[in-house]
Amino acid sequence: MKYGLIGFKGRMGKEIMHVFDNNELVLKMDDDFYEETAIPEVIVDFSLPDVTDRVIELAREKNAGLVIGTTGLDDHKISELKKLSEEVPVVQSFNFSQGINILKMILRDYSKFLKDWDCEIIEIHHNQKKDSPSGTALLLRNEIKKEEIVSHSLRMGGIPGDHTVLFANEGEMLEFKHRAISRKVFALGALKAAEFLLEKKKGFFSFEEVIKWTH
Amino acid sequence: MKYGLIGFKGRMGKEIMHVFDNNELVLKMDDDFYEETAIPEVIVDFSLPDVTDRVIELAREKNAGLVIGTTGLDDHKISELKKLSEEVPVVQSFNFSQGINILKMILRDYSKFLKDWDCEIIEIHHNQKKDSPSGTALLLRNEIKKEEIVSHSLRMGGIPGDHTVLFANEGEMLEFKHRAISRKVFALGALKAAEFLLEKKKGFFSFEEVIKWTH
Amino acid sequence: MKYGLIGFKGRMGKEIMHVFDNNELVLKMDDDFYEETAIPEVIVDFSLPDVTDRVIELAREKNAGLVIGTTGLDDHKISELKKLSEEVPVVQSFNFSQGINILKMILRDYSKFLKDWDCEIIEIHHNQKKDSPSGTALLLRNEIKKEEIVSHSLRMGGIPGDHTVLFANEGEMLEFKHRAISRKVFALGALKAAEFLLEKKKGFFSFEEVIKWTH
Amino acid sequence: MKYGLIGFKGRMGKEIMHVFDNNELVLKMDDDFYEETAIPEVIVDFSLPDVTDRVIELAREKNAGLVIGTTGLDDHKISELKKLSEEVPVVQSFNFSQGINILKMILRDYSKFLKDWDCEIIEIHHNQKKDSPSGTALLLRNEIKKEEIVSHSLRMGGIPGDHTVLFANEGEMLEFKHRAISRKVFALGALKAAEFLLEKKKGFFSFEEVIKWTH
Repeated sequence: MKYGLIGFKGRMGKEIMHVFDNNELVLKMDDDFYEETAIPEVIVDFSLPDVTDRVIELAREKNAGLVIGTTGLDDHKISELKKLSEEVPVVQSFNFSQGINILKMILRDYSKFLKDWDCEIIEIHHNQKKDSPSGTALLLRNEIKKEEIVSHSLRMGGIPGDHTVLFANEGEMLEFKHRAISRKVFALGALKAAEFLLEKKKGFFSFEEVIKWTH
Repeated sequence: MKYGLIGFKGRMGKEIMHVFDNNELVLKMDDDFYEETAIPEVIVDFSLPDVTDRVIELAREKNAGLVIGTTGLDDHKISELKKLSEEVPVVQSFNFSQGINILKMILRDYSKFLKDWDCEIIEIHHNQKKDSPSGTALLLRNEIKKEEIVSHSLRMGGIPGDHTVLFANEGEMLEFKHRAISRKVFALGALKAAEFLLEKKKGFFSFEEVIKWTH
Repeated sequence: MKYGLIGFKGRMGKEIMHVFDNNELVLKMDDDFYEETAIPEVIVDFSLPDVTDRVIELAREKNAGLVIGTTGLDDHKISELKKLSEEVPVVQSFNFSQGINILKMILRDYSKFLKDWDCEIIEIHHNQKKDSPSGTALLLRNEIKKEEIVSHSLRMGGIPGDHTVLFANEGEMLEFKHRAISRKVFALGALKAAEFLLEKKKGFFSFEEVIKWTH
Repeated sequence: MKYGLIGFKGRMGKEIMHVFDNNELVLKMDDDFYEETAIPEVIVDFSLPDVTDRVIELAREKNAGLVIGTTGLDDHKISELKKLSEEVPVVQSFNFSQGINILKMILRDYSKFLKDWDCEIIEIHHNQKKDSPSGTALLLRNEIKKEEIVSHSLRMGGIPGDHTVLFANEGEMLEFKHRAISRKVFALGALKAAEFLLEKKKGFFSFEEVIKWTH
């Protein structure tokens, strides 16, 4: 696959290059840098919202699919992405980990059976993380058919990200636990999304659709 | 509810009486003991296969629903239970824990998304448990769309029963963990099954159907 | 061993009788009940502070060792127990679990090596538990040479009591986890303490001394 | 600190350079490469046993302390290192993680209190790991005063290394769990060891002594 990469100098950019290394990097962009050696089939962007407009234009101009994992996109940018998806295929998600997306689906389908169980969430992240609870904890909580779910945030050392959803009743306990081993998780997710896009002409897709397509 | 209890003197029998204490125990049977003060609507049996034939007759004679959690039933006894279920409703399962049955359903539906992840199972039980891996570990393993799942059995102290199904790929790990807190789990399951039967005229049901009915 | 039991009608009392069943129960006391068939060598009390004065008198009168696990004893009662211990041997502790006491010792000795790691505590108890954090969490926290240890209290279903002390730095995590399987833990601890007292003439002992004596 | 690095091109070498970046790298060696810009105070070697002899000579020649984490050293090489330590200070260990070394000390001191508990070990590593059980699992097992400790090895995805030592009796469970977050653990350990050596004239030290010195 010929691909373009936005933010190739950053830590996530490097991870993506590593995971995509059987593919051909033909367009690289970062801050003051732009290099293009061929037309990309897919553009991958895990950078910041201030370049999203420019990336949208680029995808439209090159007629390339777009995998976008940038966080903090506002409603306007989301609607611009949807407009773009009438011309080229787009995968947009705030979390490209397969495991978290599978857990979301499980909680959506099965938490109804657990509604008279107590439920709490524990998430552990490195001590540099500013927000609390994590966006992913909120995302999981939204799938659980229950009000008043307490979540506990631990900020410790260099933990990349643990999320545990616990349910218990009088006689038993169920735990659903996800551990990110490294940033590589998200790069692997981006690769699956890029492969998915190669088979699409246009449309706006979530990462859950990528997971369903690959299985 | 008026209920009958087979094996009321045993540890599981006592647990059932405790959990059913808002209901009326009208028929008690154990070894050389039989006492009946009224006709039961439901009979609960978590005893041994050698009394199953007699229990089937009793359910037929009293026209009572049957909740049966006896393990080690052979095909012949299962088919006798199915015959009985043409006259009265029957719930039969080898595991009456809600959590394990929910986990079974989750693995059946979602393990297809995890088929390129590695998968192993860990189960921990008290050191008096003879069989290994546990019946429940086998039951969970059968739901996972994957060959060659290694399971690890730990036999330690007085642990009532932990089951963990682990999946991992290069960048992330997912764990599904169930912990039985006490024998009470199974008595609570029996109560749900008995309540379910009150609404049925006849039919052969699994515990999963009880769970779906209550939600 | 001939032993006396205060609060024999309660849940903890029953557990103690069960665990002590190779011994001879010669004195039983509860609310309006008192029965004595012989002089006890040891008296076991896991009841409430309002009978502590009477129990102290009883131990003095019978010249019996005292195992006391009553929680909520004030300084005055502790000093009365110390006075008693000049005549008979006394074991007093707020937690008779071996595991928790071993964990206390480990944290006391080793947390100095972990003082530049982040540390947080998670404790999970049944949803009827009123106090938060648990007394045991406070007890563990006091042993850790560190300020500002956040503790998280989960109140879920029927969990008897989990305590986890987590440490993490940039590159690794250490977890120390204790799980009470049932109330029986504390009864087993009481039995060890009673056996310990048989070898003592007098003195005031903690449960840690019992653990060290048995090894 | 002026330091030398053996195997600077490898993954572990890069991690060490990253962690040591406030120090001055004055000697670099790898396969066919050798570069020296000043005399190092300490040499760090986490490479392979076939260069150990050369590294020993280098340390002697430069009069530099040696931090050596190479695995698979035979008795002869260990005795050569001891000879070297009569001239310069040497820290040698098969595991430079602080957490694992602290866990070793805890098990050495406290497992005697747990000798009538059941004990089993679970270790999880990435699916490329060849040996099983892991060297670290063996190392932990040797510290436990108990025969017949079963260990379970899981080989899954990209897990850098989890080790859990479990103890249970009738009423309670204790778990000691270590998780390596990344290779960085060992580089951080090497840095502590190098700082330790700066204060020593000669002698052969284990990583436990480094830990004790820093606290």
